Amino acid sequence: MMKTQYYTASSLDGFIATEDHSLDWLFPLGALADTGHPQFIAGVGALAMGASTYEWMLAHAVKPGRSDAAPWPCTQPAWVFTHRTLPGVPGADIRIVQGDERPVHDVMCAAAGTCNRWLVGGGELVGQFHDAGLLDEIIVQVASVTLGRGQPLLPCRITAPPLKLTAARAIGSGFAELRYDVPGCGA
Amino acid sequence: MMKTQYYTASSLDGFIATEDHSLDWLFPLGALADTGHPQFIAGVGALAMGASTYEWMLAHAVKPGRSDAAPWPCTQPAWVFTHRTLPGVPGADIRIVQGDERPVHDVMCAAAGTCNRWLVGGGELVGQFHDAGLLDEIIVQVASVTLGRGQPLLPCRITAPPLKLTAARAIGSGFAELRYDVPGCGA
Repeated sequence: MMKTQYYTASSLDGFIATEDHSLDWLFPLGALADTGHPQFIAGVGALAMGASTYEWMLAHAVKPGRSDAAPWPCTQPAWVFTHRTLPGVPGADIRIVQGDERPVHDVMCAAAGTCNRWLVGGGELVGQFHDAGLLDEIIVQVASVTLGRGQPLLPCRITAPPLKLTAARAIGSGFAELRYDVPGCGA
Repeated sequence: MMKTQYYTASSLDGFIATEDHSLDWLFPLGALADTGHPQFIAGVGALAMGASTYEWMLAHAVKPGRSDAAPWPCTQPAWVFTHRTLPGVPGADIRIVQGDERPVHDVMCAAAGTCNRWLVGGGELVGQFHDAGLLDEIIVQVASVTLGRGQPLLPCRITAPPLKLTAARAIGSGFAELRYDVPGCGA
């Protein structure tokens, strides 16, 4: 059964980035390759993200127009939710959308086929998918830091029914990977 | 080596209580007796807490003057940090203090002897202990819920050096227990 998954790293106190969207605190903690990230990515057939996440990827990974520019890192189609006008990336399948998540999710499911749908972030967008009954699973790499303040992991209340923890494991001393099924999702 | 430990439950998104200090979301998730709580408590020789935590215990556990009143649940001496005037509990060793954590911590260590010191909460008080170099270990029962907003787990930044994850385990589907050593502490 293919799933719509929120896969992200978070501080222990529930922030996915600083207030100014920095991830500088994250990268010293370990290599993505040592986590379940490569295996996760291999199962992804479509991505969705908010504007801030997309702009972070442009600024830190793609760097268009700079001497150290790089290709868009994903081969899967990516939907970017925003009310603003944002640039695309040459050679990348990036679809700027806005409004209701449901019809976009339908298109994502069709595009992903037998693969999963990855909600990259941020938390507000994932909360909207959750509220629309479209979030199946949450996979968090809990980083061994606290930030005190920042961008929230998932700014909504999920208590009744609660999430269902399906796995917890340490990845070195820098990360704990927690996996949750989201009950009541329309699977 | 005896430790000063922050042992608490938190939502996945880093809150130890709702904004109005409710824990109603917590108790349906499982019995304390099924976690490491009994074993943890057996090793505790002194407690410290903030005013809100103390008032929560008075209102929900002790209920003084009510027909369902109960004894103070701890036999160990407890220090309550507050600038306010708060009542004690008959028959309980409760010491109302304010100001610098260090001299209080010295007295706690002497009282605890060969047992550990438990920082019950809230997050602000534990952050002050951390900033004073007095926090050795963090043990969090990450509950399988999100609250969206509430009282913060630990409102300070600990990134350089980061915490050191020493154990991660699932306790049923309702909790993940994460244990961290706090580097740079004056052990």
